[in-house]
Formats: sequence, structure tokens, C-alpha cells
Amino acid sequence: MRTSPITISDNTIRRLSKYLRKLQELESEGVQKTSSFELGTLLGHTASQVRQDFSCFGEFGQQGYGYNVTLLRKSIEEILGVNSGLTAILIGVGNIGKALLANFPFEECGVRLLAAYDADPKLVGSSVHGMKVQNRAALDKRLKHELPDIAILCVSQNEAVSAAKYLAERGIQAIWNYTNREILPPDSHVMVENVHFTDSLHTLCYYVTKEKKQSKKQN
Amino acid sequence: MRTSPITISDNTIRRLSKYLRKLQELESEGVQKTSSFELGTLLGHTASQVRQDFSCFGEFGQQGYGYNVTLLRKSIEEILGVNSGLTAILIGVGNIGKALLANFPFEECGVRLLAAYDADPKLVGSSVHGMKVQNRAALDKRLKHELPDIAILCVSQNEAVSAAKYLAERGIQAIWNYTNREILPPDSHVMVENVHFTDSLHTLCYYVTKEKKQSKKQN
Repeated sequence: MRTSPITISDNTIRRLSKYLRKLQELESEGVQKTSSFELGTLLGHTASQVRQDFSCFGEFGQQGYGYNVTLLRKSIEEILGVNSGLTAILIGVGNIGKALLANFPFEECGVRLLAAYDADPKLVGSSVHGMKVQNRAALDKRLKHELPDIAILCVSQNEAVSAAKYLAERGIQAIWNYTNREILPPDSHVMVENVHFTDSLHTLCYYVTKEKKQSKKQN
Repeated sequence: MRTSPITISDNTIRRLSKYLRKLQELESEGVQKTSSFELGTLLGHTASQVRQDFSCFGEFGQQGYGYNVTLLRKSIEEILGVNSGLTAILIGVGNIGKALLANFPFEECGVRLLAAYDADPKLVGSSVHGMKVQNRAALDKRLKHELPDIAILCVSQNEAVSAAKYLAERGIQAIWNYTNREILPPDSHVMVENVHFTDSLHTLCYYVTKEKKQSKKQN
């Protein structure tokens, strides 16, 4: 695969992740070959969109033959940095933190979760889905000696901005933000990926309401 | 506000939700006026992007004066269908279902959560964060008599597709999908909003890995 100097759009990267998910599914079902048409159909995109996304990273398949599912899966994993040994810590073991510890397939994403931290003395020392919860002092200590690649921020909304600032000051370069509070990168070296459930529900509400208004008009 | 016949892009709708979140924040801090420049800066967009998004829905402010925070908040809520009396049910009270029941601000989003359902006999009858968990028969009964606007799907990956099909057949029009399995609309009347945590982490991994490769090259 050639490394391309062109700029890849954020939307392309997000679609790559969808392709990867679908390819993992196909592979687990024993499917060996697929096509841009099939992938597109399964994911609600056109074949041309799929081909265009892949073309940003070079050629993955042969014209008229399609793609080898396993090779394509591996290529996309390489592009996305899955299995490149990234590490993460989780900060804030409330409901959402617990849900991530219990359910999130960190290993499948190639991310090694090193530790979980919380300020609540009732939680510290307990084991949550196999992960021992550590206190703030332990977090301070870790960040002095061994920086993880990603901090997963699950603290309360009120603590979000100050926690992000604290992490940035200690050299964390990527924050996966679950606080439901918009966090702008505290400095230019920090990447923030905001997960906002409300945005997603609002989007659905918009379309549902629009649909309702239209069907009201028709009746 | 005029109702516009033009097509609004999905990205615009998602940004509207971000504006709304920020306006609610500003309002709670007692801020009365804002501008496209300020909103843009707070959210990482340009002022022109903000103005362009609002222009899809008519005029909200006065040139040179800015926006009244409360009025703008209300206008966006109206566009998004917040407070238009939408209802939802939650299906699957595992970790993610529990996290939503415990944390998600349904009321703030103007969505009334009517009930929660699970097939696990151990869960049925218990109360999870104030919501009594009901069984499959109760779900069947509800869907026969009173269709909610939105079904929040939190069942396991394996059950995702069949659950979506079941809901569509009973007339559900919108599915908020937390199963981490891509669901295509089972028929053209059903809207699906997929929430994929992995896509979000993959995006972060891509940028972290890219950054690491670049700094390796420089050293």
C-alpha cells in the first residue's frame, strides 16, 4: 500500500471504521470475497463512494475480481492504527465509565486499557468488570512516568473542562470525551473526539418531527 | 421563522444540536447575548459556518446586534423538534441501557421515556434508576396499542437485526441504535440513527497513529 500525502477527510476515516466493522462481521461468517457494491449496499453507501474512499489509500482489490475480505480488513486496520499498540486510561467510573469497562471491545479496536481512575473513595480499590479503580494520586503518578496515548474522559459535565486541562498539561495528546460537554482541544497538541449522545438523539428527533408534520399535512 | 423548502444537510442538523447544547450552557450561566463569532469560537467553527447553518432556517438575529440567547435556543429547539412531545421506549437493559437510564437527559432533549423492556427474567420486575423493567409480552402489548416515536435499541449485537425487524413490522418509525451493529432501515419508513462508539475511537486512533508516525520521522 502506498502512503499517500493527500489529506484524508474526517468523513472518510469514519467510513473506514464502518467498513472495518462490516468486514470483521463478514470474516466471522466465513465470507472470503466482497465487492465495493456489496460493501456499499450493506452499509447504505454507493459502490462509487466505497471505491473513492479506498482510492485515498491506494489500491486494495483487482478490477472485476473484488476484494479479499481478510486482506482488506488488515489494510484498513493498518490505516486506522488498530493493532499499533495504542494504550488508554479511563477517568471517571460512573455509569458510562462502567458501561465502557463492561462492554466496549477495546481489544478488537487494538487499544490496551491500562487503568481506571475515580475520585470517589467508595469506588477506589474496588474492581469494576475486572479493572481495579485507582485514586487521583495514582493517576498523577502514572502521568509522570508513563503517558498513555488516549485518555477516556467519563467524569461529570462540571469537571470536564478542568479535567481536560489537567490532562493536556501533563502531556496527554488524545481525549475521548464522554462528558456530554463540548471540549475544545486545550492546546494545539491535543486531539479531542467528543461523543455526544444528545446530538445523535436530536438528529433523530428532527427527522421524526419533520415526518410527523408532513403526514399531518397530508391527512 | 419561515419554514424552508430547501433540503437541510445531516451535518447542519448535527451542528444545530451542538449550538443548542452551547446555548443551554450560556443561558444557565446568565449570558443573554451571543454572536456567530462567539458561538463559532466556542465550538470550533467559523462565524460564517454558523451564519450559513442558521440561514437555512431563516433569520434569527439582527446584523451587528447578535443573537438573543434564549430566543435562539427556543428557535433551534423548535427546528429540532425538542419539546414537540416525542416519546421513546428502551429495549435491552444491559450496561448501556442502564447507563442511558441513569444519565441520559431525556427531559432536556424533550423526549419522554415511557418504558424499558428486557427479556432476562432476572431483570423483569426490577426497578432500574426509577424505571420498572417489563417483559417481552408487555412490549408486544404496548406496540399493539400505543406506538412510541422512538425505540432505543440496546440489545446485544446478535439480536440487533431481528429486533429492528420486529420493531419495524410493528410500525416503529425511528430506531436509536446502540447495539454496535450497523442496522440498515428495515423498510423505507424507518429511520435508524446508529451510535457507534468504535467508529469514534477508530477516528481518534487514526489521528494518534498518524501523529506518532510523523514525530518518529522527525526524530
